[in-house]
Amino acid sequence: MTVGKSTNITWHRGKVSRDDRIELIGQRGVVIWLTGLSGSGKSTIAVDLEHALLEHGHHAYVLDGDNIRHGLNRNLGFSPDERSENIRRIGEVAKLFCDANLITIAAFISPYRKDREGVRALQGEGEFIEVYVKCPLDVCEGRDTKGLYKKARAGEITDFTGISSSYEEPTAAEITVDTSTMSLDACVGTIIDYLREKGFIQLP
Amino acid sequence: MTVGKSTNITWHRGKVSRDDRIELIGQRGVVIWLTGLSGSGKSTIAVDLEHALLEHGHHAYVLDGDNIRHGLNRNLGFSPDERSENIRRIGEVAKLFCDANLITIAAFISPYRKDREGVRALQGEGEFIEVYVKCPLDVCEGRDTKGLYKKARAGEITDFTGISSSYEEPTAAEITVDTSTMSLDACVGTIIDYLREKGFIQLP
Repeated sequence: MTVGKSTNITWHRGKVSRDDRIELIGQRGVVIWLTGLSGSGKSTIAVDLEHALLEHGHHAYVLDGDNIRHGLNRNLGFSPDERSENIRRIGEVAKLFCDANLITIAAFISPYRKDREGVRALQGEGEFIEVYVKCPLDVCEGRDTKGLYKKARAGEITDFTGISSSYEEPTAAEITVDTSTMSLDACVGTIIDYLREKGFIQLP
Repeated sequence: MTVGKSTNITWHRGKVSRDDRIELIGQRGVVIWLTGLSGSGKSTIAVDLEHALLEHGHHAYVLDGDNIRHGLNRNLGFSPDERSENIRRIGEVAKLFCDANLITIAAFISPYRKDREGVRALQGEGEFIEVYVKCPLDVCEGRDTKGLYKKARAGEITDFTGISSSYEEPTAAEITVDTSTMSLDACVGTIIDYLREKGFIQLP
């Protein structure tokens, strides 16, 4: 088969199946969904986990507020309905990344159980790993790295999770890490161990 | 550094930059945006191009009606405003895939010039390749593989591009392929040649 002007590339025709893609990429996609209060450590764990996976030859990508709220979901606010639509869209994007066989790490407060279950239902069996990034509210508020709790207490931010909006704790998360008692290494390592046990990655 | 229960993995800390990721993945992301009438051949070219790239070791992924309209954009119809929001969201998702350094192939009618320019503006310099999949309306209508033109002519589908809704041809697409005169091989090969010339891929 001759392609274009001067090349001699050949390829198979037709749609690439998920299994074909797993073989061609050498990796199976999965969604790692970090949920927890603002300041609990979701993003810190997410970027650290991504770095570790990439350095060990696994293709990973983080979806978080930085690249979603300023882009895809820039037209959504923080009302309950908009929060649900926010999470629904992220769940659909995570599904696409998973279909492309990336190890997809989503780090969002995602306060409502129903919304998280909706995201879980979108993904294939065993391809959704819910990680509860647990941390007492007073510890998160004490950290207040972005100064958001202070603003929420002052009434400058409304619908703030933990203060003026509810957070529904996971009841059956695959993994729970407590950032008030565990080191960052231990939190990330716990997730890596789980991925290895389930055969998503091969690391030493 | 000790991680988790028993491992001795080490990694660098902090956010992975786009450049770090390019080095770790061995590939630079790009968005290949196929625009054209229904039946022009966008999806056929997209899946063929994806297959060719994957088989040659490049990580590619197709965004198209199949995985977007039934998922992320299931809550959008076909009015002009909804078409614009449809394309805006796809552009943002393409940006995320490009940031993850996948060769991202988007196949959507995307009839409005303004919407396509909006997507272009989201991507980095040189990272948006507009491909006009050109084909005369009567040829597309003659193919009518999905029977949509027949329904549109019968008034069963409203706002159908080319019949009851406008298609604005690209004026400065990076690539134009005419599927009424070129073979599928030639169309895909033209895009592959362009990617090679621009250094996105290394193929024989």
